[in-house]
Amino acid sequence: MAQEIERKFLVKNDDFKQESFKETKIVQGFLSTVPERTVRIRIKGDQGFITVKGIGNKSGTSRFEWEKEISVEDATDLLKISEPGIIDKTRFNVKSGGHTFEVDEFYGENEGLTVAEVELDAEGEDFIKPKWLGEEVTGQVKYYNSMLMKNPYKNW
Amino acid sequence: MAQEIERKFLVKNDDFKQESFKETKIVQGFLSTVPERTVRIRIKGDQGFITVKGIGNKSGTSRFEWEKEISVEDATDLLKISEPGIIDKTRFNVKSGGHTFEVDEFYGENEGLTVAEVELDAEGEDFIKPKWLGEEVTGQVKYYNSMLMKNPYKNW
Repeated sequence: MAQEIERKFLVKNDDFKQESFKETKIVQGFLSTVPERTVRIRIKGDQGFITVKGIGNKSGTSRFEWEKEISVEDATDLLKISEPGIIDKTRFNVKSGGHTFEVDEFYGENEGLTVAEVELDAEGEDFIKPKWLGEEVTGQVKYYNSMLMKNPYKNW
Repeated sequence: MAQEIERKFLVKNDDFKQESFKETKIVQGFLSTVPERTVRIRIKGDQGFITVKGIGNKSGTSRFEWEKEISVEDATDLLKISEPGIIDKTRFNVKSGGHTFEVDEFYGENEGLTVAEVELDAEGEDFIKPKWLGEEVTGQVKYYNSMLMKNPYKNW
């Protein structure tokens, strides 16, 4: 299994929106955040999903994951009884050279926060930095979606 | 919504098996038992199900419930990461006059336990007691499936 290498940045302004070739509304919450068996409900565009993840094995290379598409109506109902802390964001896909940035603009309790992520094939791999790209926040736990649910941006 | 009136009994012997008109294997476990949002995985015969239930409203008359059929293979995988305490039983349906008894024979950690349940339309409604019907245990919490998971029969 390939290792995922991702770098995460803040963004300076809204210029990424003009360059975006795809926008997807994402709303997600959890029925359970117990690490051994998390149950996530997600609406992504016009699709709903229920996703169950187990805990990884000791080497961290494999983790049980099961996902089933459900209707947006069902997902909406399930989000109503989910744990407090719903993530509500729009994901903009933006090309930059050979790479694609995923730029997440958050709403609700995380209104005002926008982060951009790029996936690389190798550590140290070069990429073209868009002008709107700001400070790097790779690895900063407070920007994890799981943390944004518990300690949203408006509380920072 | 109609009130459910159920009476539960132990059984004296295996004679109910000759009278049974339907047998269904049931295996179930929980991904989450948090009352506000329980997530149950169930295999019933050749069907799998994932069921999410919310907590009832104050008057107890309505409770959010969402169920989706999934493959038996998927349900089997999900049971593997479920909370400890899987319920494994065969349900026998047995007619007795105008009523149908559901007789559950348990296996695994509850091996040796068999309970029979009958649903009535009204409190005090009469029904024909089959010869194999034993002591009444209606309302005894230790016979609830949720309790049999936590404190199985073999520990009694």
